[in-house]
Amino acid sequence: MANVKEEILKKVKGWAGYVDAKLGFRNHWYPVAFGKDIDEGQPQKIKLLGEDLLVSRVNGKLFCIKDRCLHRGVSFSVKIESYTPETITCWYHGWTYRWEDGLLSDIITNPESIQIGKQRVKVYPVQEAKGCVFIFLGDIDPPPLVTDVPPTFLDDDMVICGQNKIVHSNWRLAAENGFDPAHIFIHKDSVLIKGNDLALPLGFAPKGDAKMRTRIVEDDEEQGAKGVFDLLAEASVPVFEGKIDGKVVRTGNFGHNRVANNISIWLPGVLRVQPFPDPATTQFEWYVPVDENSHYYFQTIGKRCASPAEEQVYMEEFNTKWRAMALDGFNNDDVWAREAMVGFYADDEGWLKEILFEADSAIVDWRKLCSKHNRGVQTQEHIKA
Amino acid sequence: MANVKEEILKKVKGWAGYVDAKLGFRNHWYPVAFGKDIDEGQPQKIKLLGEDLLVSRVNGKLFCIKDRCLHRGVSFSVKIESYTPETITCWYHGWTYRWEDGLLSDIITNPESIQIGKQRVKVYPVQEAKGCVFIFLGDIDPPPLVTDVPPTFLDDDMVICGQNKIVHSNWRLAAENGFDPAHIFIHKDSVLIKGNDLALPLGFAPKGDAKMRTRIVEDDEEQGAKGVFDLLAEASVPVFEGKIDGKVVRTGNFGHNRVANNISIWLPGVLRVQPFPDPATTQFEWYVPVDENSHYYFQTIGKRCASPAEEQVYMEEFNTKWRAMALDGFNNDDVWAREAMVGFYADDEGWLKEILFEADSAIVDWRKLCSKHNRGVQTQEHIKA
Amino acid sequence: MANVKEEILKKVKGWAGYVDAKLGFRNHWYPVAFGKDIDEGQPQKIKLLGEDLLVSRVNGKLFCIKDRCLHRGVSFSVKIESYTPETITCWYHGWTYRWEDGLLSDIITNPESIQIGKQRVKVYPVQEAKGCVFIFLGDIDPPPLVTDVPPTFLDDDMVICGQNKIVHSNWRLAAENGFDPAHIFIHKDSVLIKGNDLALPLGFAPKGDAKMRTRIVEDDEEQGAKGVFDLLAEASVPVFEGKIDGKVVRTGNFGHNRVANNISIWLPGVLRVQPFPDPATTQFEWYVPVDENSHYYFQTIGKRCASPAEEQVYMEEFNTKWRAMALDGFNNDDVWAREAMVGFYADDEGWLKEILFEADSAIVDWRKLCSKHNRGVQTQEHIKA
Repeated sequence: MANVKEEILKKVKGWAGYVDAKLGFRNHWYPVAFGKDIDEGQPQKIKLLGEDLLVSRVNGKLFCIKDRCLHRGVSFSVKIESYTPETITCWYHGWTYRWEDGLLSDIITNPESIQIGKQRVKVYPVQEAKGCVFIFLGDIDPPPLVTDVPPTFLDDDMVICGQNKIVHSNWRLAAENGFDPAHIFIHKDSVLIKGNDLALPLGFAPKGDAKMRTRIVEDDEEQGAKGVFDLLAEASVPVFEGKIDGKVVRTGNFGHNRVANNISIWLPGVLRVQPFPDPATTQFEWYVPVDENSHYYFQTIGKRCASPAEEQVYMEEFNTKWRAMALDGFNNDDVWAREAMVGFYADDEGWLKEILFEADSAIVDWRKLCSKHNRGVQTQEHIKA
Repeated sequence: MANVKEEILKKVKGWAGYVDAKLGFRNHWYPVAFGKDIDEGQPQKIKLLGEDLLVSRVNGKLFCIKDRCLHRGVSFSVKIESYTPETITCWYHGWTYRWEDGLLSDIITNPESIQIGKQRVKVYPVQEAKGCVFIFLGDIDPPPLVTDVPPTFLDDDMVICGQNKIVHSNWRLAAENGFDPAHIFIHKDSVLIKGNDLALPLGFAPKGDAKMRTRIVEDDEEQGAKGVFDLLAEASVPVFEGKIDGKVVRTGNFGHNRVANNISIWLPGVLRVQPFPDPATTQFEWYVPVDENSHYYFQTIGKRCASPAEEQVYMEEFNTKWRAMALDGFNNDDVWAREAMVGFYADDEGWLKEILFEADSAIVDWRKLCSKHNRGVQTQEHIKA
Repeated sequence: MANVKEEILKKVKGWAGYVDAKLGFRNHWYPVAFGKDIDEGQPQKIKLLGEDLLVSRVNGKLFCIKDRCLHRGVSFSVKIESYTPETITCWYHGWTYRWEDGLLSDIITNPESIQIGKQRVKVYPVQEAKGCVFIFLGDIDPPPLVTDVPPTFLDDDMVICGQNKIVHSNWRLAAENGFDPAHIFIHKDSVLIKGNDLALPLGFAPKGDAKMRTRIVEDDEEQGAKGVFDLLAEASVPVFEGKIDGKVVRTGNFGHNRVANNISIWLPGVLRVQPFPDPATTQFEWYVPVDENSHYYFQTIGKRCASPAEEQVYMEEFNTKWRAMALDGFNNDDVWAREAMVGFYADDEGWLKEILFEADSAIVDWRKLCSKHNRGVQTQEHIKA
């Protein structure tokens, strides 16, 4: 069953599948945590696409199960009980499941029960890459992780640092804000501009054919990821003088460091900004659906390092500079901008009432790409299943 | 589309239009603030009939626009940006609108956009009178203000002082409580009674024909306002001895000052109590719909003053005496009485289940007047438009 | 009209009437307070099966009326006004009702009103027994209290002590947790076990025919109460060694005091555990529906006393020992277990998705008994009436 009323979906031309995906797309890989934060035998609660999950490390390897006992539906996480490393036991009646495959292997209160060996709680594939924990929230054999991350993210010499926070907007509003070529207007007074001497216009006046403003990556690609490149920087004139009624009322920033020349967004909802926040780094950031009303803003910055010594220097730089100045200082403006859109789209009618302008053609291409190439739309039925 | 279920509206005889008006009546003038509180270039957020608005003073004159950018639906008020006195600029992408007519006159991030000059955000007429700011929340050419205020309010020698607060009940419950001839029972221990030596019975025992209890003003009137006068004071015996089972259990108040002899209520929801709280003053109070669940209680007291010196004395008197003793001390009992009715009418079934008695005939006449003479019922469609 | 969607009720075999009873069963006796806590002329607010009520003591006797004036629907309890012991007067317009039969006997603001003597507010029968205040929430002539309490509760020598608290789960989840033979797993570390040296297994492995696990009491009984006895203690092997993958991971408690040999549950939702928490006492506990989302957990412990001196000793013992160690220490585990089930059953689909095991046959028998023998299902229409 659709998440959005049929009468609304019918009126959306070309991206109904995206409008319906308020809970995100199923059968994709999503980052949910950093591996260093999940210790052996210490299950962590995660909510992903509306589903309550537990992620734990067992003998070094990560596993993920749905955080709901099959018997009476309680969450294991209300009171974690684990009597062997390989299993988790429900605190209520002792139903015991294997982390590996979810099999109900024992029931402590009734070792003779006919349910033993017959029931399975849902488990999801997990993998660690670049220090990030990815869950495959779906039901099919998972495609390789490389199909769900931006190019270069998994490169051998790419060192990734980052942080994760919850933001109270739908994930799509976050993705659109991030990829929006004109949203730089909100960053015009950011601490990062002075702090890293950035050149940043107020906006872009597109020129020429709308089709030249993006490049869509959807087939014949080596890694199989689907994405859209914003080419507006090339197909437009940057606006450094903001005018009203012909008079200049505000100017852009004329710093020395040119950044963000190469911006792209990828299924299932991850932006790559290259270079950013520095000419020597790349920002990769995910908008991971938690539920209809919130997402994890999973922010990372990558830098190519030729040696462990360089890596060490970069990690220090990240912790002392980029975390505060870029991921918080700069991006917190994005956070409140996303939240400011919530009301208008809350009843799904915003998708029909919005009035777009030239710069939004990049967003429209992203919506179409999602509608065409997603591997499934998450529904309430999946959550309850 | 109606605000209330058709099955309920069908059962209401004679005032379905009133029962449906939980969001108030459209195309009327409403006071929302005092002029002295809106400074040049300092836009104020107002919510009126469910619509988010911004009111600002530009070169001395007041203007009102809908607080929602046409592009992605964000509120301007999240971060006010104004680069010229005559315009407001959306903080998100620099869409810039004129206060006067709402025209999208510039887009800072793209001065070439085809949307410029083609789009308009909704604006509403505003005027100041007696120090109060009135907004015409509607779509037609506004009738004169005098058609939406009680007689005498706009008289040249009438000096108005007041205050405004938000109350958490529907506006109709407030209007009905104010006009209710029998609700004086809740004021029997008010500080105002001793404080201003008032005569106040516990209630009224109506006598004679129910039709003699009100006078309805609906046509051929000089100013065009529509209202109902409560004549119960003349068509009843005041009750000064409250009895149960034949025994007196409580008495009314026998002070020297007779007040509230002349009570009337006017579209779109404003009460005049004359004289009140003093034999020399008149209370005018509005119940302004904010949304379904709350209203501005816009309280004013008027006094005729023959000179600036008298006016000065009265303003001092208002601030030192009437504000605390009448508008707070006395009327706060009305506030909690309105809030006490909320639950019963919350699902709209209270309008069918209530059991009225004689004194309520005044309220019924008010309901009928509203149903007949309102200029439109506000709906969710208006709010979203 | 049903409380639960027809499509769900149709899929429930054998206990649809129970699934529909989220607001409880009408026409039964429920304890709501202790008599000592309701003083003469001090009405107390109670919410029962979704209805707001006032209970008061008038000349020593208890009465209960619906806490809602017939006129404009306000609650009397917003501001209690009572001018004679036998009546309550609405603070708003002076409508005055008799506690005894709910008759509108006077209207202070209009002693001539035609409504006087014609209207009645709903009243419910009340009785005190064993120090507890029982309300009959229904419309028929009430059957004797003995039909709605467990056997022995009303015995002459049974002395009852207790307490009452609100718990935020539906009443059925509470009843099922209480009667659930396998839920003792949650009590394995309770302070009561060491504190009173209890023997308590981790669970029970049923043996033999499922029909032997309960005894259903539904007709030809002297007192007329309907209930289910859990016989699992006899029809099973207690589990003292909890195993996973064949290895013992946890053991039960081998104290000296054997308790809870005889457990039964009774309409309209009251558990008897005998003996408990001590070999010399019996616990009687009610799960009284407050509304869909909460219940009063009305906990009592009874002890047979041969003399007033023994009674005195027991009351001291209750207050210094059992209240803290059993009703709080032990039963607070039940409280959070009930609350942990809330999410799964919130949309009523949990009743279809749950996967039961052997020990749940007792719960199933309880559900069937309720569906068959309840005297009516409470609905929103009853609440609004």
